[in-house]
Amino acid sequence: VQSGLWPNDTAEPVRRLRTAGLEAFSERGFSGATTRQIASLAGMSPAALYSHYASKADLLFDISHAAHEYALRELQREFAIEGTAVDRVRRLTTTFAQYHASFHTATRIAQYELHSLVPDHYKVIVELRRAMHKIMREAIALGCVDGALAVDDLDSTTTFVLSLGIDVARWYRPGGRLSPEDIGTQCGDLVIRMLRRVRSGA
Amino acid sequence: VQSGLWPNDTAEPVRRLRTAGLEAFSERGFSGATTRQIASLAGMSPAALYSHYASKADLLFDISHAAHEYALRELQREFAIEGTAVDRVRRLTTTFAQYHASFHTATRIAQYELHSLVPDHYKVIVELRRAMHKIMREAIALGCVDGALAVDDLDSTTTFVLSLGIDVARWYRPGGRLSPEDIGTQCGDLVIRMLRRVRSGA
Repeated sequence: VQSGLWPNDTAEPVRRLRTAGLEAFSERGFSGATTRQIASLAGMSPAALYSHYASKADLLFDISHAAHEYALRELQREFAIEGTAVDRVRRLTTTFAQYHASFHTATRIAQYELHSLVPDHYKVIVELRRAMHKIMREAIALGCVDGALAVDDLDSTTTFVLSLGIDVARWYRPGGRLSPEDIGTQCGDLVIRMLRRVRSGA
Repeated sequence: VQSGLWPNDTAEPVRRLRTAGLEAFSERGFSGATTRQIASLAGMSPAALYSHYASKADLLFDISHAAHEYALRELQREFAIEGTAVDRVRRLTTTFAQYHASFHTATRIAQYELHSLVPDHYKVIVELRRAMHKIMREAIALGCVDGALAVDDLDSTTTFVLSLGIDVARWYRPGGRLSPEDIGTQCGDLVIRMLRRVRSGA
């Protein structure tokens, strides 16, 4: 399931190493995992791993980058669909939460190991995260202009809205009562309730 | 600031070791930190550390346990205060989010290193987390009985509501535009908007 994150043109050895990295980092954390274990999980020699990644840090960046790019592309696609401002915010938050459930292993690593990225890698990831924040902020702002939504603090409300989706990576358990689709739908509904303008007197 | 988590009667060496553990685990992760580093940060010998903690895992449990007990006590205290059901949910969510900002180092470790706990320790922490879920669930249920709140799925809504507070530990930056108090207030307001029953026709 998680391998759906990698673009179709990803080379087979890279695909196997990323998947092995997901497994190793999620079980032992970035610090605890070794390149030897990762190579072994991928059914490769450490030397073969090093022909693709200079270091464990490079593999972490590659995984984190793929996960963040995937999420950003999903948000960009949803943003571009025509419809009301409320529908747009609902689609964005539904898709974002569902993504964090469907790819919970990768997204958990992407969130929890941000501090393990080297500074140059971190900068790249932060830019992708800023781009996601900007899309969600713009969608909420359009809803406020439209009059359907109303918020007191656009920036922090955007952070809280993204947070509801991101934190799904922490609490989602595969095989539980709720599917990733259910979680997405519920998150979208809750966000719209949270942001909808309440008519005075209601 | 973070040392406010330890009860007043905590012995001085334990206090120093917990604070050193916070620093080491937050910088290097549980796997990456060593008992030698932790002892050194506490200004103690590794032997002195071992007279208080049998292992690094015991220290992690001690920190996680203190953080979870603190949060549970805060929720219990807020739950017990008299007032309307809406006020109770608002107070619980405000306090919970503020707590996760004020003690972000400890709460981030408590969240991110759950998988590093040994099974017996994990069981104890899961019980404390269940108790918190139960309190929030009950407060929301009382609001629904009261008619002021309305939710479709009480269990998952409770998870989303707690999630908004927990995830503050991830995104809060000390010295930013919003204080822990501001974040708490905003979170409480957003949760009430999210859960409030909408009159039909409004």
